[in-house]
Amino acid sequence: MPNDNKAYAKREKAYMNGTLFPDVRVGMIKVNLTPTVTRDERGIPRTEPNAPVYIYDTSGPYGDPDYKVDLKKGLPRLRQRWIDERAGQDRTPTQMAYARAGIITPEMEYVAIRENMNCRELGIESHITPEFVRDEIACGHAVLPSNINHPESEPMIIGRSFAVKINTNIGNSATTSSIDEEVEKAVWSCKWGGDTLMDLSTGNNIHETREWILRNCPVPVGTVPIYQALEKVNGRVEELTWEIYRDTLIEQCRQGVDYFTIHAGIRLKNVHLADNRLCGIVSRGGSIMSKWCLLHNRESFLYEHFDDICDIVSRYDVALSLGDGLRPGCTADANDAAQFAELDTLGELVERAWNKDVQAFIEGPGHVPMHKIRENMERQIKSCHEAPFYTLGPLVTDIAPGYDHITSAIGGAQIAWLGTAMLCYVTPKEHLALPDKEDVRVGVVTYKIAAHAADLAKGHPGATIRDNALSKARFEFRWRDQFHLSLDPERSLEYFEQAGHTEGEYCTMCGPNFCAARLSHDLRKLGKK
Amino acid sequence: MPNDNKAYAKREKAYMNGTLFPDVRVGMIKVNLTPTVTRDERGIPRTEPNAPVYIYDTSGPYGDPDYKVDLKKGLPRLRQRWIDERAGQDRTPTQMAYARAGIITPEMEYVAIRENMNCRELGIESHITPEFVRDEIACGHAVLPSNINHPESEPMIIGRSFAVKINTNIGNSATTSSIDEEVEKAVWSCKWGGDTLMDLSTGNNIHETREWILRNCPVPVGTVPIYQALEKVNGRVEELTWEIYRDTLIEQCRQGVDYFTIHAGIRLKNVHLADNRLCGIVSRGGSIMSKWCLLHNRESFLYEHFDDICDIVSRYDVALSLGDGLRPGCTADANDAAQFAELDTLGELVERAWNKDVQAFIEGPGHVPMHKIRENMERQIKSCHEAPFYTLGPLVTDIAPGYDHITSAIGGAQIAWLGTAMLCYVTPKEHLALPDKEDVRVGVVTYKIAAHAADLAKGHPGATIRDNALSKARFEFRWRDQFHLSLDPERSLEYFEQAGHTEGEYCTMCGPNFCAARLSHDLRKLGKK
Repeated sequence: MPNDNKAYAKREKAYMNGTLFPDVRVGMIKVNLTPTVTRDERGIPRTEPNAPVYIYDTSGPYGDPDYKVDLKKGLPRLRQRWIDERAGQDRTPTQMAYARAGIITPEMEYVAIRENMNCRELGIESHITPEFVRDEIACGHAVLPSNINHPESEPMIIGRSFAVKINTNIGNSATTSSIDEEVEKAVWSCKWGGDTLMDLSTGNNIHETREWILRNCPVPVGTVPIYQALEKVNGRVEELTWEIYRDTLIEQCRQGVDYFTIHAGIRLKNVHLADNRLCGIVSRGGSIMSKWCLLHNRESFLYEHFDDICDIVSRYDVALSLGDGLRPGCTADANDAAQFAELDTLGELVERAWNKDVQAFIEGPGHVPMHKIRENMERQIKSCHEAPFYTLGPLVTDIAPGYDHITSAIGGAQIAWLGTAMLCYVTPKEHLALPDKEDVRVGVVTYKIAAHAADLAKGHPGATIRDNALSKARFEFRWRDQFHLSLDPERSLEYFEQAGHTEGEYCTMCGPNFCAARLSHDLRKLGKK
Repeated sequence: MPNDNKAYAKREKAYMNGTLFPDVRVGMIKVNLTPTVTRDERGIPRTEPNAPVYIYDTSGPYGDPDYKVDLKKGLPRLRQRWIDERAGQDRTPTQMAYARAGIITPEMEYVAIRENMNCRELGIESHITPEFVRDEIACGHAVLPSNINHPESEPMIIGRSFAVKINTNIGNSATTSSIDEEVEKAVWSCKWGGDTLMDLSTGNNIHETREWILRNCPVPVGTVPIYQALEKVNGRVEELTWEIYRDTLIEQCRQGVDYFTIHAGIRLKNVHLADNRLCGIVSRGGSIMSKWCLLHNRESFLYEHFDDICDIVSRYDVALSLGDGLRPGCTADANDAAQFAELDTLGELVERAWNKDVQAFIEGPGHVPMHKIRENMERQIKSCHEAPFYTLGPLVTDIAPGYDHITSAIGGAQIAWLGTAMLCYVTPKEHLALPDKEDVRVGVVTYKIAAHAADLAKGHPGATIRDNALSKARFEFRWRDQFHLSLDPERSLEYFEQAGHTEGEYCTMCGPNFCAARLSHDLRKLGKK
């Protein structure tokens, strides 16, 4: 985020330090605002300062102009010392295990500060304390993804008592893009606000690409290990085995992947429930495992070895994202027997994960019309014992390919308000093509809107501060402040400048006579007389 | 909508005729689908036809390749004979007066067919009959805008028992665009699905521009007459008078404007309620009338002459859109005393309109966070006696200038689900600049998404048919069918082709091994063995 770009001129990287742990240093964006200037009846100006606004920042060191990017060296190992200091303890090294033992980790204080920046500065009380974070992790209501081998990742938390998060996807296609390009894409999605990143690469160089991404990614990284396992058997589903899968898991645990999507909820007895669907099975992992079950006519190795999986990931604190392999692929298939049967299985599995101190969350749909969203959320909370929910959208209608970032943001905002903790972004190219950089930007910003709208509706502490600061700037014609506070300062400035507008007490859209804000200021003067 | 564009190759203009009135001829889009081809175990193909899908069409004669556009001549006067035949009756010539007298007009049968195209073809029962339409208009729950001097307009209905409609805005700016351009913009917004069109022009040539638009516009046209009245006094609010306003109303009634936004809800006693708002008054008409009230320290002439206004518009069947001059301009101001005080006044006014057989609907916000949307809708229904609600968005957060089509579509979908009858579109340029053609397209399609999502959630008869047809096409790799059924066939085809995809039983996004739909088809074959 170069500060020589005038769209960012009033933004700066700032840091807040921990109280429990002085070496906790949380990066954020500080937006410095210009003062409000009013004039009295004699035209004498009076100036009132506007407090700076802090913005949750996912760009990591890349957003700091003092940081020199060196992809070969990788990012600073922010969490290394905390991890090393705990290594001596004779305990499963997961945040859940520490939380249950009553231990507040530096990561927990980090996220408490990160969720509370504006409240802390303005002295507003917030329920989000380090102790609250610990408690939410202990009971499984929140997940703090933090593979001990990904110390570059800045701590963040996924749970419905916290700000709604968004995940972005990248993935190299068969026609291999270069590793530089992949890293660039990862950094790009973090710049716009992606909270976690899933590497869905298939094809060659999958290990090496992931290594570069992990060493240079400031947010938790997720993968779907069955993709790499399938590559190892050259795409032949029937040749997948537990052993191949297990070795893939271990390989990725060691590299530092922070969470795995695992489609262990596919049960042999439930596969047929999707037979009469309009769109069958649309989850890649779900269709792979369903095919395996039918070909071998046996329960999937993911379900059968689920406890083994937990034993492996618990040694690295990799969180499990329990995949919804039977998620609906169209509105007609929403909330059907197949989806809810799998959800019940996921509820069973999440308890098994918790029994081994493994952090876990649950993936959700997909395509759901608005009137069925609440049922989805309520059943998830009940069936899965309040484990965090992580949904793809949902898309609330099927008729808008080319605009599915919007169909899904409508559903995403609603399900997040009702309790979903993290939304997986959707880009305009969904169903049609792989996203380019501009699609990623639009997808991320669209999902930041959905997530923030939900934070407002849920009453997340301090969520209204940025809205109100921006609206005040808008009403007072502090155009630059408005843009600097926005989700996409570059775009808003671009539109404003393209139109040839000048900064002043109206804009050329309506002209001075038809400017409601200007008239409204006149009114206040009239009222005071 | 040129049929030589391959994005529309499978679409054709079709017509359905009335039963009560044989000269009722409702235009629509017919999407002809290719058959589903399956292969049995021996590879022998079996073909099953897919029924055509009908799409509500707002493009009017422009969508018919047999129609020759002649802007000087104007569109065919579709409703002229019906209007002439009723002219002899000694009755207020409004659809509401006819409805209350138990008369079903050709316009009412027209909209009943238009709301029911797919149900009619597929033999699905629907509650939307001509008699139901009459009843909804009679009790004020629905409005059928139909100025007797705008016979070119195709009948459409606004009410919560019907499909959610969307309004688009055009308006020439001070730097006058040509009249051709304005008409082109009007036709453009109808092409993408605008159900009504508001001409918000200010500046010179306002009368002539409107004349060209009216004579060439196939959808109802609305205006805000105070804008033209203010031009007549050279922008000096204090010089506005009832007489100038009245003459402007009559001028526009005669031209054929179908509905007027009238900010008669601004009461002198309520203006001060906006004093402590973060963003004051953001409605142009609202700020003009508030300023007038304060300058003269008296009740507005719009409120005082409201019965006179009704007498005038009732002679032409111009509907009233009761403007929300005190709508909130930021989320912080939502649902406040100012907004709700005005809503109570609008409830009083709508009854006064109904007393004179004048059709009316109520305008609504604006900026409302999600958790306050339901209260807004419920209070409107109660305070305004179930008159149709027509909202701008609402935007559910203030932090995304450049993306406010999305922030507002999230709120629009929800409030429409809860009962709002028509949504006023918002483009990506909202708050920043005037929209260009591409912004209009994106704004309209975004709002078609919100409206249709609400239709699905409300269970509008036949609403699921298009979704399911598109999803079935997607699952069966009938790519062209998918695009032809979509809200924007050009864009979806463009994205698909740009990516170099070829039509086949998977696409290059995932490749054959990772194509869930392809795997899912394999599963069905496995299941049958």
